[in-house]
Amino acid sequence: MLDRSALLRAFRCARQCTVDLCAPLEIEDYVVQAMPEASPAKWHLGHTTWFFERAILVDRPGYRVCHADYSFLFNSYYHAFGARWNRNRRGVLSRPTVSEVLAYRRHVDDRIVALLTTADEPTIDEIAMSIELGVHHEQQHQELLVTDIKAALGQPPLYTPYRTRDDSGKEPVVLKGTGAMTSFAGGRYQIGFAADGFAYDNEQPAHDVWLQPFALCDDLVTSGEFLEFVEDGGYERPELWLADGWETVQVQGWTSPHYWVQSAGRWQVYSMFGVHDMAPADPLTHVSYFEADAFARWKQMRLPTEAEWEVAAQKLGHDELRDGSFLESRQFHPAAPRGEGSPLRQLFGEVWQWTASSYMPYPGFQPLGGRFKEYNGKFMNGQYVLRGGSCATPRSHMRMTYRNFFQPDKRWQFTGIRLAA
Amino acid sequence: MLDRSALLRAFRCARQCTVDLCAPLEIEDYVVQAMPEASPAKWHLGHTTWFFERAILVDRPGYRVCHADYSFLFNSYYHAFGARWNRNRRGVLSRPTVSEVLAYRRHVDDRIVALLTTADEPTIDEIAMSIELGVHHEQQHQELLVTDIKAALGQPPLYTPYRTRDDSGKEPVVLKGTGAMTSFAGGRYQIGFAADGFAYDNEQPAHDVWLQPFALCDDLVTSGEFLEFVEDGGYERPELWLADGWETVQVQGWTSPHYWVQSAGRWQVYSMFGVHDMAPADPLTHVSYFEADAFARWKQMRLPTEAEWEVAAQKLGHDELRDGSFLESRQFHPAAPRGEGSPLRQLFGEVWQWTASSYMPYPGFQPLGGRFKEYNGKFMNGQYVLRGGSCATPRSHMRMTYRNFFQPDKRWQFTGIRLAA
Amino acid sequence: MLDRSALLRAFRCARQCTVDLCAPLEIEDYVVQAMPEASPAKWHLGHTTWFFERAILVDRPGYRVCHADYSFLFNSYYHAFGARWNRNRRGVLSRPTVSEVLAYRRHVDDRIVALLTTADEPTIDEIAMSIELGVHHEQQHQELLVTDIKAALGQPPLYTPYRTRDDSGKEPVVLKGTGAMTSFAGGRYQIGFAADGFAYDNEQPAHDVWLQPFALCDDLVTSGEFLEFVEDGGYERPELWLADGWETVQVQGWTSPHYWVQSAGRWQVYSMFGVHDMAPADPLTHVSYFEADAFARWKQMRLPTEAEWEVAAQKLGHDELRDGSFLESRQFHPAAPRGEGSPLRQLFGEVWQWTASSYMPYPGFQPLGGRFKEYNGKFMNGQYVLRGGSCATPRSHMRMTYRNFFQPDKRWQFTGIRLAA
Amino acid sequence: MLDRSALLRAFRCARQCTVDLCAPLEIEDYVVQAMPEASPAKWHLGHTTWFFERAILVDRPGYRVCHADYSFLFNSYYHAFGARWNRNRRGVLSRPTVSEVLAYRRHVDDRIVALLTTADEPTIDEIAMSIELGVHHEQQHQELLVTDIKAALGQPPLYTPYRTRDDSGKEPVVLKGTGAMTSFAGGRYQIGFAADGFAYDNEQPAHDVWLQPFALCDDLVTSGEFLEFVEDGGYERPELWLADGWETVQVQGWTSPHYWVQSAGRWQVYSMFGVHDMAPADPLTHVSYFEADAFARWKQMRLPTEAEWEVAAQKLGHDELRDGSFLESRQFHPAAPRGEGSPLRQLFGEVWQWTASSYMPYPGFQPLGGRFKEYNGKFMNGQYVLRGGSCATPRSHMRMTYRNFFQPDKRWQFTGIRLAA
Repeated sequence: MLDRSALLRAFRCARQCTVDLCAPLEIEDYVVQAMPEASPAKWHLGHTTWFFERAILVDRPGYRVCHADYSFLFNSYYHAFGARWNRNRRGVLSRPTVSEVLAYRRHVDDRIVALLTTADEPTIDEIAMSIELGVHHEQQHQELLVTDIKAALGQPPLYTPYRTRDDSGKEPVVLKGTGAMTSFAGGRYQIGFAADGFAYDNEQPAHDVWLQPFALCDDLVTSGEFLEFVEDGGYERPELWLADGWETVQVQGWTSPHYWVQSAGRWQVYSMFGVHDMAPADPLTHVSYFEADAFARWKQMRLPTEAEWEVAAQKLGHDELRDGSFLESRQFHPAAPRGEGSPLRQLFGEVWQWTASSYMPYPGFQPLGGRFKEYNGKFMNGQYVLRGGSCATPRSHMRMTYRNFFQPDKRWQFTGIRLAA
Repeated sequence: MLDRSALLRAFRCARQCTVDLCAPLEIEDYVVQAMPEASPAKWHLGHTTWFFERAILVDRPGYRVCHADYSFLFNSYYHAFGARWNRNRRGVLSRPTVSEVLAYRRHVDDRIVALLTTADEPTIDEIAMSIELGVHHEQQHQELLVTDIKAALGQPPLYTPYRTRDDSGKEPVVLKGTGAMTSFAGGRYQIGFAADGFAYDNEQPAHDVWLQPFALCDDLVTSGEFLEFVEDGGYERPELWLADGWETVQVQGWTSPHYWVQSAGRWQVYSMFGVHDMAPADPLTHVSYFEADAFARWKQMRLPTEAEWEVAAQKLGHDELRDGSFLESRQFHPAAPRGEGSPLRQLFGEVWQWTASSYMPYPGFQPLGGRFKEYNGKFMNGQYVLRGGSCATPRSHMRMTYRNFFQPDKRWQFTGIRLAA
Repeated sequence: MLDRSALLRAFRCARQCTVDLCAPLEIEDYVVQAMPEASPAKWHLGHTTWFFERAILVDRPGYRVCHADYSFLFNSYYHAFGARWNRNRRGVLSRPTVSEVLAYRRHVDDRIVALLTTADEPTIDEIAMSIELGVHHEQQHQELLVTDIKAALGQPPLYTPYRTRDDSGKEPVVLKGTGAMTSFAGGRYQIGFAADGFAYDNEQPAHDVWLQPFALCDDLVTSGEFLEFVEDGGYERPELWLADGWETVQVQGWTSPHYWVQSAGRWQVYSMFGVHDMAPADPLTHVSYFEADAFARWKQMRLPTEAEWEVAAQKLGHDELRDGSFLESRQFHPAAPRGEGSPLRQLFGEVWQWTASSYMPYPGFQPLGGRFKEYNGKFMNGQYVLRGGSCATPRSHMRMTYRNFFQPDKRWQFTGIRLAA
Repeated sequence: MLDRSALLRAFRCARQCTVDLCAPLEIEDYVVQAMPEASPAKWHLGHTTWFFERAILVDRPGYRVCHADYSFLFNSYYHAFGARWNRNRRGVLSRPTVSEVLAYRRHVDDRIVALLTTADEPTIDEIAMSIELGVHHEQQHQELLVTDIKAALGQPPLYTPYRTRDDSGKEPVVLKGTGAMTSFAGGRYQIGFAADGFAYDNEQPAHDVWLQPFALCDDLVTSGEFLEFVEDGGYERPELWLADGWETVQVQGWTSPHYWVQSAGRWQVYSMFGVHDMAPADPLTHVSYFEADAFARWKQMRLPTEAEWEVAAQKLGHDELRDGSFLESRQFHPAAPRGEGSPLRQLFGEVWQWTASSYMPYPGFQPLGGRFKEYNGKFMNGQYVLRGGSCATPRSHMRMTYRNFFQPDKRWQFTGIRLAA
């Protein structure tokens, strides 16, 4: 458990980072909801604040809520905390304004900081877990904030850049993928979180699994490799797709990954820097599970399970967590590997890697106690686990045992593919 | 046809008024689209500008469009002008920003003013009709701007006021409705526009109709009268409703007019001043055709036809057009009659009056020539005519022959009821 | 008012005719509901029976309903008679079986016949109106039965014939359309029902209207003429369509009238005899109001109003009512005119003629008294009036003043076009 | 692999059984589709026939298809076999008639029997696998036929019985559930099919898994136990449900298991014998995964994984497969256990047991070769595995390794619950 000063540091850092991510935005950009599963930037700013208010302040003697309606407006999905605004309609609200939301943040931040600064030790002990949970919650929303901003700005025909690229002038040395794979023996392994420090309930308990021998590709699938799939008619061949995937392709009219733009016969992509030519060596991103699965079938390979991924990471992934592109890079776009590195390159950072594992409880799973027991467990249906973090994930948020999860048709996150066999 | 200076005056006045209406807004308020049939304030500002650009500037030699994508983004429904952004998704666009849209307005305004100032007379003759159409188009959007702002701000739980009421301190002398009716003989009448000056294509040609004897209520239906209907179970009795109306009541869950708020057993209404107690003597507003029709049936009366309404207005309505509350009052809320007035009070202003007439072409109707032939004619299906203008209509936009039209389930406009027998 | 023996004759005739129309059906054909607005044949058989039971028998002393659930299952839309089965789901019920429904018919018929045979005169007077209404109601359902059977059988790929054509061997002498029009003076006319005998509430009261001079085409629009519209890109040109019409074309994917089949570059049509080559001289049928309106615009003409149509019929239509193809022809397909005839050919029979008149109450309209006041009035929204009857209308059901009505996107009835100018 | 005579016997038996199941039906009952996921009995009869025609006959020299359109009409979801009729609209087709479909069955059966009787051994070898697959496919559809008939007949208000119960007069000796559980050690186990004989691709390959220690309830959850959940407000407490489950409860308006009928304060159930009082000791059936999961949470227990279930069945389930109620019982309703039996009662038969395992490929999964590779693999998304078979499953169809699968909101199958801890 973090001590008082570590809590203060983590809290301030996380809170500031969220606001900083919004710096390039115009006021208008805080308001819109590009699609039902995205949220306005303004809402993320308010919701993460509400989380701390709700978890820590509301029941403290003498605390007055900032605004009587904010709990209704900024509660996401917690039935235990009462009714809430319809999530599909977050983008039809202009109020509270951005400056009101920022004032709400300051209102709550001031009181949390005062509490962390002045409370006695028993109180610190009592709230430490909630503060830490709130920080991790805030970090999760930082990633969503980035991808939801991208969804808002990245609409045709304007494809507004979030910021300009600062080209250093020197061409990066791109390491070409070798197509090589790294093999692992079958047998009994342990996965799940059993270390000190923070982890979500869904990563626990650590437990044994039995794996057949397996191999993982050393490199992430690149845009160039996926382009071959596109050009081979991948989006027109039902035999390559799961039934639900094929229906999604038809209904959504997909013909390429999200944010790919075909212009005058040339493939371009929209990134946070605007529209530019596709770099074939860049890791592929913005594909759904359905596309990842279809691509794997086309390659006559498969996606790894989350256990396989975690076992590989236990053996070979430690350095990656230090070297990968995370949120801190402020590139918000996956980069080709820049050095030789370990046999398994880019296990962490760049893009979330879809696994073939449904998001289900680990054996012996216990949901978070206290008020936030709705946090993870109630979503354990209809989603797939993703591993490794992305260029929009805060580095300190990532862990080897971290389980992200999305429905198989979602692709506005930085999601990509590592193949297995 | 207006001359050069009148055109300049009308153009400048209309353009300024639209911007003035937005003065109380926060930037965020320009962005949202509260429901599919409403548009963001930002979009209204851009669309009315595009209309002038498209009608007058685009084909003039040497004109450079302000932005290549604005025609796509600000075209509303004109197939002749190419593809356009999906109207249901106007609220998911944060760009162009408000200041970019205002710059677009200045770009176009400057060139129109220069043209009106410097062009030779043949050119003025050539563009006069388009300028005048553009001004009337702008005025229509001023009303929509008001009602769309109301829709955006008037959402629970915040019910944000658009502005504060400037209470003059003195209680208005409210004239109670007498329940009296004014009768008109049957026979041959002429309706439709046949005067000098501007009118829309859909008001023409003037033509004869044959009416049976009829009578109109001297007063608009008030909120208090409609409350009796509500309390008599009006929203729960299918026998009072058209079949489509009853289905709408069920699907939408209507139990009162729009913007009525029941709080602690007391009826309140949301107006542009915020939420306040319902004033029973105020004209009822924000009811759909379905509610107007059901109320009439409950009263064992009926709605007037548009011909009846226009004939009555020909005889008794002239002063009303001077005295009613229009946009210029800046109250944006219908007021009880303040004086004895003519037998038919409040024929103009306050609230649009639903008629029992489907919106269909007059005999011999010719759609507007030139580029804007899609303006009115293509909507002549599934809508009802409303007459008289409202507290959100610019006074100079209104005419005795003016035909407004909406689908029978719409009620976010200032729509009310005058009964007939 | 019909006397006892006329009532008996009309009742027996109508009841038998409905059953006879089902003679060619397989049991399976009675069950299906091809689209939400159609009903299973089985349901029509039950509903028309329920109508007599409900209107006449239920409240007679000693009457026992045939089955406790039939009122729930066979009520169509009468709120006054309690809850009812969802009309969109009439085709998911296999029970009651066809033979049970026919037993229900016999149960009710026997009692009605006994009543008509043995009741005293005051009773006959009391029920005469309901019997007559029930007979006309039954006739309306005969037409729907035919068109709903056509919808059920006429689905690709099987296009099952309802019956075989009995070709007489001799080629009919087809009168080519001359393109001529007949003109009528403007002025004051009376329309609406004012004669003796039966008419629906919606045809009354007779009242005066004022018409501008007008002209009607002597002939119905033929399939061949409409083919020119199709081949001229009529379904691809938004400027020809009402806005709602164009949206319907897009959403439904219409490229031709309903039941037109393009096969190996040749146009065929499905009729109750199966699929056969389109006969260009046959009156066009199975078009919606939207298509009728678009075709008229393409021709630079228009659809007549119902008043124009009725005035023309008053002057020239009497013989037509005798000569047109009605249900009794058992052809269920409109035929080209076979003789010189009056200047206006085929005013009655063949195909319902869309008018440009919304279905609204006549001035002074009073809904049917008694239990069936929901019969007509509550549908007076969002529909257009059609005139003249069709090849599926019982001849004795038709009147000069008869007002049929459908939504503008419906086209599974025998609906066609006569143009006006 | 089965030899010639075993194939003949299995084929004849399966084909006859399907037809026998329809014996109690009226013609009308073959036609309807009670909900999109159910199919008309007529369609099952045709589809299972098409399967044999398509798998075996179509490419044999000299074979003429029975009807050119049947492949279009009776293909379910195989893209490889071309376009097909929309599955949501199977119930709008009255043709082919039942007798035509039965003739189709005879047409195909005659040729298959002739082939099996007269072909040389190499041909038998070549088709044996397809025959066997077709037989198992037919058996799967027998279960669906039963449940789809139940869905068609079991609609309110008629709740038509499929057949009458033959009460033997003697009250069955019902063994009350003891609430006891049987424990299993953790460790390495093998699951999946590795025996001789037929199994689907999705049961293979056999592979090792590592299990934590676990325990299974000896008895299935009974209706009486689930009633306690209902009466404890189970359907009104969001904290008991998965997020998707809670949304389903709201949207569907669920307040009890499917086919439960509350009448005058008494709980009844609809079974194939009609409506009768709920028997509290009967195994619960017709619950979705969502309900099973919520019930388990309410009990502070959980659902077993499919591996746990299979390991338990390996140890204790053999006799059950002989004693459980299967299709052959012709009761089509789960029965309370009738004897002491093994520690784990009713592992097989009665009701399918929802597991907590997503339906995913086993490690090393290879889809069926040849034409039917779409059979199982493409559905491996968004579904849960069920185990054990039900009172509507043919006994010979069941295996210890058998994996059935449905979406978590489906409950028209005979689905129930066995809890684990």
